[in-house]
Amino acid sequence: MSFSEFKPLNENTLIEYIQSVPSLSSKLANNFSDISVKEIGDGNLNLVFIVSSSTASFVIKQALPYVRLVGESWKMTKERAYFESLALKEKGRLSPDHVPEVYHFDRTMSLIGMRYLEPPHIILRKGLVAGVEYPLLAQHMSDFIANTLFFSSLLYRSTTEHKREVADFCGNVELCRLTEQVVFSDPYKVSEHNRWTSPYLDRDVEAIRNDNLLKLEVAELKSKFCERAQALIHADLHTSSVMVTRESTQIIDPEFAFYGPMGFDLGAFFGNLILAFFSQDGHANETNDRKAYKEWILKTIEDTWNLFHTKFIALWDEHRNGAGEAYLPGIYNNPEVQLLVQKKYMTELFNDSLGFGAAKMIRRIVGVAHVEDFESIIDAAKRASCERRALDLAKMLLKERTKFEGISQVVSAIRQF
Amino acid sequence: MSFSEFKPLNENTLIEYIQSVPSLSSKLANNFSDISVKEIGDGNLNLVFIVSSSTASFVIKQALPYVRLVGESWKMTKERAYFESLALKEKGRLSPDHVPEVYHFDRTMSLIGMRYLEPPHIILRKGLVAGVEYPLLAQHMSDFIANTLFFSSLLYRSTTEHKREVADFCGNVELCRLTEQVVFSDPYKVSEHNRWTSPYLDRDVEAIRNDNLLKLEVAELKSKFCERAQALIHADLHTSSVMVTRESTQIIDPEFAFYGPMGFDLGAFFGNLILAFFSQDGHANETNDRKAYKEWILKTIEDTWNLFHTKFIALWDEHRNGAGEAYLPGIYNNPEVQLLVQKKYMTELFNDSLGFGAAKMIRRIVGVAHVEDFESIIDAAKRASCERRALDLAKMLLKERTKFEGISQVVSAIRQF
Repeated sequence: MSFSEFKPLNENTLIEYIQSVPSLSSKLANNFSDISVKEIGDGNLNLVFIVSSSTASFVIKQALPYVRLVGESWKMTKERAYFESLALKEKGRLSPDHVPEVYHFDRTMSLIGMRYLEPPHIILRKGLVAGVEYPLLAQHMSDFIANTLFFSSLLYRSTTEHKREVADFCGNVELCRLTEQVVFSDPYKVSEHNRWTSPYLDRDVEAIRNDNLLKLEVAELKSKFCERAQALIHADLHTSSVMVTRESTQIIDPEFAFYGPMGFDLGAFFGNLILAFFSQDGHANETNDRKAYKEWILKTIEDTWNLFHTKFIALWDEHRNGAGEAYLPGIYNNPEVQLLVQKKYMTELFNDSLGFGAAKMIRRIVGVAHVEDFESIIDAAKRASCERRALDLAKMLLKERTKFEGISQVVSAIRQF
Repeated sequence: MSFSEFKPLNENTLIEYIQSVPSLSSKLANNFSDISVKEIGDGNLNLVFIVSSSTASFVIKQALPYVRLVGESWKMTKERAYFESLALKEKGRLSPDHVPEVYHFDRTMSLIGMRYLEPPHIILRKGLVAGVEYPLLAQHMSDFIANTLFFSSLLYRSTTEHKREVADFCGNVELCRLTEQVVFSDPYKVSEHNRWTSPYLDRDVEAIRNDNLLKLEVAELKSKFCERAQALIHADLHTSSVMVTRESTQIIDPEFAFYGPMGFDLGAFFGNLILAFFSQDGHANETNDRKAYKEWILKTIEDTWNLFHTKFIALWDEHRNGAGEAYLPGIYNNPEVQLLVQKKYMTELFNDSLGFGAAKMIRRIVGVAHVEDFESIIDAAKRASCERRALDLAKMLLKERTKFEGISQVVSAIRQF
């Protein structure tokens, strides 16, 4: 079998493929006698195989030329694998403890070979549904976000590097367009792809389509998403793009990566934690009322922002005399102006994060792709009740995002809904 | 002589060059007996030749690998000629009445052959210094700006086209960096390139370097300039980039063009008109007190914004069901939300324009490149007095730009200084 042109692999043809690629076959010490291949198939977009033998194991991820969640009718460039491999390598360089290593990339086959995140790593979202606490999650996520955003921004980079990178990632436009559609457009209009817990949320969905102020604010966020090249963002940083154990946090699936607004990453993480929070009442039972767990989620939101803020400012201070071109030392190196500038920057980033986070919440309740946090609540009336509270908070957060002065105010608002 | 690699031309070698290029020599009907070539040499950056014969005439513009104004020590890519030719063609397509036709482009020689803007066309700035009124200027400038900005924005374009164009123009980074330095950085720090009417403005210059609030606001504008790809802007739209007669308005020199914030173009034009306004007292004499002319400048500022606003909104309304992806018809096509969205968009654009315009004014008084409006006032004390009023207005405008609700408020503020 030849792999000189694209073909989707299966569990059998993948073994042939691995045998033809030295960097992968050598990982298995060229011993294929006890190789096992399993397609785990839980992605919205791609084929994902776990390959293991007595010697080693790795993951093979192959992009398909359509959106797997929807079917072959929704075309989607398989070139996204190229941008995913680029982003994995770049983000791995900036945050090596939290990004799996890439072993192999094949542009023709749209295929990435990478570290297998061994058990007990699970998708964070599944842990949140199960009610598992991750004591290092806020620490690790704030590390990853602060490092990957800071070092790819003009706070660290020259505009020469910046524009070169921006131009490269402009090529990932199809994935950007998917986000534009499913996050910023479809939830606010009639779309065949939208779905929601009907009939319970029918009126809520209609109310969104008639909420002019909400649509006005969403337009501003969409404009930032399309036009503002602030940093190399992951651009899909929800709780299913994170794999965890109690000791380890690994960020995966950056195929949507491009130069966009920083707040989109922070917002994706916060928004999905808030969805997890509101889903907890649906998972409560006699043995576990989930009250303590809800507190842990709120603390994780608060800690993540506060740690991110501290780390981001520390990186800024550390590199204030470097090549970063946004705030030249000759102009901004006095303590008073530095403080003013940082406060303004972080306030805008905070408000952006709330806005994007809210938009991500809304789309997960009324748009095409839902979340297991809610979907696993079997009783539809109960699910709808949880979803409605999340939706109402999100609408308020999106409209009032510039009025919040700190993360503790956001946590108070979450409690009130 | 061979032209297979770059060499700067002179009045003699240019004739040889023209003879070797069919699209240029055919313009002259291949008759070189009465050809005349004149290097006009008044650009900050390039060689500019006027070629004429009894048959025809055209202009040859050649980029040099350095900033002509400063000298060979300040390197500057000659690739800018490529972006200038791209922008001339694109803006010419969008606003054919106000952009000279391109006849020829040679990337190796960094050379553009284009329409000669025949007398009585003169550089607008020279007309403003001479006190000449141009009754169609506001009409024409608002046409050019509305058309070139609207049709290159996401109000008209798909994000696919947008990102492809943004990526192309990222290559013009060296010219962007020149603007970043001379507009957003040097005026706010000690720089060998800065100059000003000394000793009169010594304290004013020092005050700018110590004005933390001003520097805070300039940082926000710089960030928009570097990160926000809103439309294909001219990016150097001052009054020396416009050639005029009473009947004709032609925009030239778009070598700085890239995808940036729309307000930078509007601001450049307004800022330079305001400089012209404040310079008038320095040009007044017994025969002409310039009072009526100052009123004409203010009226031109007001008319340009108002006409631009009307035309831009008309284009938006006309194309609201088109391919533009910023405001999809399925979400924004009800009169109430459309009104809200347009008001918010135009208010932000207005405030951006004031900010960028103010920054362009400041840099022309305390930075490397000054304007003939002031430079032609021989009496240094008188010149400094005019400059100081412009500077004080610009500082206020930059800091207070979001508080202005309309162009007539700006005109009132100009009168008060």
